[in-house]
Amino acid sequence: MMIVIMDRTASLATINSVLRFVEDSGCTPHVSKGDEKTIIGVVGDDRALLSEKMQTMPGVEKVIQTAKPYRLVSREWKPENTVIDVNDIKIGGGDLTVIAGPCGVESETQLLEIAHAVKEAGASILRGGAFKPRTSPYSFQGLGERGLELLAKAREATGLAVITEVVTPNQVPLVSQYADILQIGARNSQNYSLLQEIGKLRKPVMLKRGMMSNLEEYLMAAEYILANGNYNVILCERGIRTFETSTRNTMDISAIPLLKSLSHLPMFADPSHATGKRSLVAPVAKAAVAAGADGLMIEVHNHPEKALSDGIQALLPESFAELMKDLKKLGLALNRQV
Amino acid sequence: MMIVIMDRTASLATINSVLRFVEDSGCTPHVSKGDEKTIIGVVGDDRALLSEKMQTMPGVEKVIQTAKPYRLVSREWKPENTVIDVNDIKIGGGDLTVIAGPCGVESETQLLEIAHAVKEAGASILRGGAFKPRTSPYSFQGLGERGLELLAKAREATGLAVITEVVTPNQVPLVSQYADILQIGARNSQNYSLLQEIGKLRKPVMLKRGMMSNLEEYLMAAEYILANGNYNVILCERGIRTFETSTRNTMDISAIPLLKSLSHLPMFADPSHATGKRSLVAPVAKAAVAAGADGLMIEVHNHPEKALSDGIQALLPESFAELMKDLKKLGLALNRQV
Amino acid sequence: MMIVIMDRTASLATINSVLRFVEDSGCTPHVSKGDEKTIIGVVGDDRALLSEKMQTMPGVEKVIQTAKPYRLVSREWKPENTVIDVNDIKIGGGDLTVIAGPCGVESETQLLEIAHAVKEAGASILRGGAFKPRTSPYSFQGLGERGLELLAKAREATGLAVITEVVTPNQVPLVSQYADILQIGARNSQNYSLLQEIGKLRKPVMLKRGMMSNLEEYLMAAEYILANGNYNVILCERGIRTFETSTRNTMDISAIPLLKSLSHLPMFADPSHATGKRSLVAPVAKAAVAAGADGLMIEVHNHPEKALSDGIQALLPESFAELMKDLKKLGLALNRQV
Amino acid sequence: MMIVIMDRTASLATINSVLRFVEDSGCTPHVSKGDEKTIIGVVGDDRALLSEKMQTMPGVEKVIQTAKPYRLVSREWKPENTVIDVNDIKIGGGDLTVIAGPCGVESETQLLEIAHAVKEAGASILRGGAFKPRTSPYSFQGLGERGLELLAKAREATGLAVITEVVTPNQVPLVSQYADILQIGARNSQNYSLLQEIGKLRKPVMLKRGMMSNLEEYLMAAEYILANGNYNVILCERGIRTFETSTRNTMDISAIPLLKSLSHLPMFADPSHATGKRSLVAPVAKAAVAAGADGLMIEVHNHPEKALSDGIQALLPESFAELMKDLKKLGLALNRQV
Repeated sequence: MMIVIMDRTASLATINSVLRFVEDSGCTPHVSKGDEKTIIGVVGDDRALLSEKMQTMPGVEKVIQTAKPYRLVSREWKPENTVIDVNDIKIGGGDLTVIAGPCGVESETQLLEIAHAVKEAGASILRGGAFKPRTSPYSFQGLGERGLELLAKAREATGLAVITEVVTPNQVPLVSQYADILQIGARNSQNYSLLQEIGKLRKPVMLKRGMMSNLEEYLMAAEYILANGNYNVILCERGIRTFETSTRNTMDISAIPLLKSLSHLPMFADPSHATGKRSLVAPVAKAAVAAGADGLMIEVHNHPEKALSDGIQALLPESFAELMKDLKKLGLALNRQV
Repeated sequence: MMIVIMDRTASLATINSVLRFVEDSGCTPHVSKGDEKTIIGVVGDDRALLSEKMQTMPGVEKVIQTAKPYRLVSREWKPENTVIDVNDIKIGGGDLTVIAGPCGVESETQLLEIAHAVKEAGASILRGGAFKPRTSPYSFQGLGERGLELLAKAREATGLAVITEVVTPNQVPLVSQYADILQIGARNSQNYSLLQEIGKLRKPVMLKRGMMSNLEEYLMAAEYILANGNYNVILCERGIRTFETSTRNTMDISAIPLLKSLSHLPMFADPSHATGKRSLVAPVAKAAVAAGADGLMIEVHNHPEKALSDGIQALLPESFAELMKDLKKLGLALNRQV
Repeated sequence: MMIVIMDRTASLATINSVLRFVEDSGCTPHVSKGDEKTIIGVVGDDRALLSEKMQTMPGVEKVIQTAKPYRLVSREWKPENTVIDVNDIKIGGGDLTVIAGPCGVESETQLLEIAHAVKEAGASILRGGAFKPRTSPYSFQGLGERGLELLAKAREATGLAVITEVVTPNQVPLVSQYADILQIGARNSQNYSLLQEIGKLRKPVMLKRGMMSNLEEYLMAAEYILANGNYNVILCERGIRTFETSTRNTMDISAIPLLKSLSHLPMFADPSHATGKRSLVAPVAKAAVAAGADGLMIEVHNHPEKALSDGIQALLPESFAELMKDLKKLGLALNRQV
Repeated sequence: MMIVIMDRTASLATINSVLRFVEDSGCTPHVSKGDEKTIIGVVGDDRALLSEKMQTMPGVEKVIQTAKPYRLVSREWKPENTVIDVNDIKIGGGDLTVIAGPCGVESETQLLEIAHAVKEAGASILRGGAFKPRTSPYSFQGLGERGLELLAKAREATGLAVITEVVTPNQVPLVSQYADILQIGARNSQNYSLLQEIGKLRKPVMLKRGMMSNLEEYLMAAEYILANGNYNVILCERGIRTFETSTRNTMDISAIPLLKSLSHLPMFADPSHATGKRSLVAPVAKAAVAAGADGLMIEVHNHPEKALSDGIQALLPESFAELMKDLKKLGLALNRQV
């Protein structure tokens, strides 16, 4: 359904031509004549295009869509939670899943040390970028395929599942050979070619929220993946861009319960990128869990001062272990297993 | 201390005239000549004015202040937490303080019913606006002094302490006769005349963060109150304005631990105004507590559909009682008393 | 008129109770049953309160107001431009009015020198703050009444009209004794007590847009002044706060033509505060005129490096004279007199 | 050069270990001991990585880079304007270049009609999307290669140069066969794989500013293209995302003169996407020219109500012709040819 608000100066002839247009499009108009304005309810079709066209017609002040533009991701379409199985980890199944690891894969020693440490502390999935989208063309861009091989090695050594980012459509086959979960980063959250390519896989994918995507746009990005056939999508709030610059981004904590009510997909939070400050990671991680997140993604580095990227926001393994203990206590209070 | 970065095209003469200016201002310059640019460290004074003036001098690219512009509110100045005593409630003392009540005081029956309900559920302070700043001149603007009298009555009847908003300097004496805590709302967070007037009191005051204030500006606003002699200031994050419109504001959850590290003042959160949606109040309230908030301010209304303002975000008394139970469990996990 | 969109799960009974509520409020409901949802058009009343209440009713998904919340400021209410006469300057009458002067009044010599310079260059109104709202309690707060006296002296000496800021309701009588136009600054744009007090005057007032006010809120703030009886309001775009920090604020250039279409009030632009950078003032001033601004407000200082505030964005008198020449040429191309 | 501000609690040993780290990295430290804090100037290297690492060292409060992170795009590196020659049109050479055409290529008749109309009115480049990045997977996604063929046909028929968007790296060879200028849209402004691929071409490319990119990030995105060898980059401001929703985006008018001072690249403006409202396109287009834009990109459609995308912001051919006349007059006043 769609609602068309006519301008108060619209003549009867103008109104009639809109009504005719609605009928010609195969829809049924319902007219309400108010004291000042005429409102037309359009029943039968809510395609975006029809709405766009009507907005350009003479006499039309505003067109309001009453239906949401997304379908497959919505809870109206699928009321029960989507649970994604990755190596027997049930993502979105009620327990809290923790992904941890370095920003980028730098070397075998680095990765294995961190992997063992986060495994020991209770994480079940290892993160690590092999292809890094960097603001500067002169920054470290990742180890590429060598990084993927190291991730596979770390999986073997620890039993952790592995998640890593894919940044361009033609890398998708390569990355999906190695990763258990593919990640689409915030800067690519509206890279529709990449979303379509990922949609053709059946592998789990974590789609991070763009730092300037509102919730509707974010869900539409996820819809691209589902519409191409891949239903294994994990959402992840990682902070939006605002005027506040004392943190790297602003964690939109309300997005966690709101997205869980709008969509059936599992919902994670990334306090490392949201805050960009080591000292804020633990309190914001706890907040995300209290707000209902299905999981967390946390950067951990054994030598942050030697990290090739984002060391400033990485937790030390011992702080991460501390946080995991606190999360377990918190989980107990919230009737959830970590 | 202050750092002056000279433009790379600045001549020796230009640099010398800046050095002279620094010395004439009674400060000592330290020069570092780099490969491209010259940097001058200015020791001895970091007054805002000196910095502003230097920014306008020829050859100066940028002036950076290394000292924070606030003093009295900072943890550097006072390392231990400020604890504010209101009727034996120790605000900021480690336990969680919950303020609850209607957006506006509407009638004796309404206020007393709600006051008894929130008391029973475990709140210790009653909120209720008597003077309401409203976006529209045609909206309900509050009961005025009559509202204050009703708040006093509710205090007597329940033993709850009472907080209410003051919107203009000349109301301060009247409002402080009735209220235990005065509130300065988000729209007045940079109303310096009001801040100065409040600073002359010795009563506790809750200063809400402006929806457009960054953390430094917010702390500077609090500094206005302390600089006028009133040290009993409570901070409160209530959401900032961002591009995201699916919530009324965006709760800046990271601001809670960050402000607690920058300042010694107690830090509250208001999930009702931050979200503007009843269904999000409980998860965001829990998140704020998990992030380290000293207290919460929550709107509760017995008949939201009849509320004269903000009914859409008010919890029903029974949902509030439910939330209080959850907060108690959460507090236990975090070693805190609610 | 108002449109109520019912949730798709709303039962017939729920819908009926909304219909009854509408009728009980003295309005007429028009029902359109769609394929998925029911829409109710409410004719007869669009008070904000009714809308707020309906949003809290069970089964109601959303309430949309079709009428704008402001009246007196709207062009629908008064189609012709408001022209404000200040000492024979016709503000909003088609010609371009230029206000210029220092950020703050600092001394007689400073003010008179600048006043003569801007008069010579073609400005017709002198600006200068006597009461300065400053972010820091330790910054220069203005000369107070002595500043007002100097403004009056400069008016006598040059024939320029005088505008100055008022920051708190009880200063209004004093400031209006001296100023030809009272200014309400961005930080006070939602200080409703001040707006109401100013509304009782009949003197012209320039109301600056708040740095986080959207256009509707801005017009509502102006509505407060008109609703109290003062129709002599000048609007002024001075930049909004965004994530971009390379300028002090982001000049919302589209707001100029948009506000001129929504409202009959004269519309100014302040490129000094919008950009915060001297080198950007001239290009942005020209842009504002090309976009249809009725006037400009520009900071000019003869010794910016000695200014007690905002020297970094002040034009030197000679650059201001240069800009005025360019504006005259531009005016010619746009069929407007400067 | 880099400036390291040490925490005021940093011990001598901590400071010394930072000094050693600086020397071990092959740089020279300059120490300034202030009253409260110690500042270290680091001469010799400003690699991003070194800065990132130092930020994670104990005792370091903040690291400030004094050099800009971009080089090839900067005016410091190349003081004179870059002029790009496209079919004898000198983009960035002082005259105003106007690009016009429909949002998307829809059919031969549509494109040719519009192409002839904009040519007649004085445009020199035709726009039209063949591959359309759309928020919804269910919206019209463009005609693909058939659209490119129609653009080539329109070029033949009118002599207009042709610009069209490329959305993914593997389309680059195809699109560059047809287009005179390749466009990278706002959503892809940080799609680094695409930027690198485009960088390998020698064809002109217009890189639109991302709606969430600040100026530094935007210039870094352009740096990606230049760093790969393609120096023919045109910048284009098309509005950023802010809290203001009455326009589609907020045109950052100050970015035009600011980018022209920071960079040697030609700078365009797109008032159609910035405003999203037909009635605002002309005033904002004039504003952009007055602010110093080298060119404009404007959507024109002969039947906006039938457009398959963005009809609401397209000018009718006759309004576009009107605007071109006004721009010519404006150009005269600004000593520029349109």
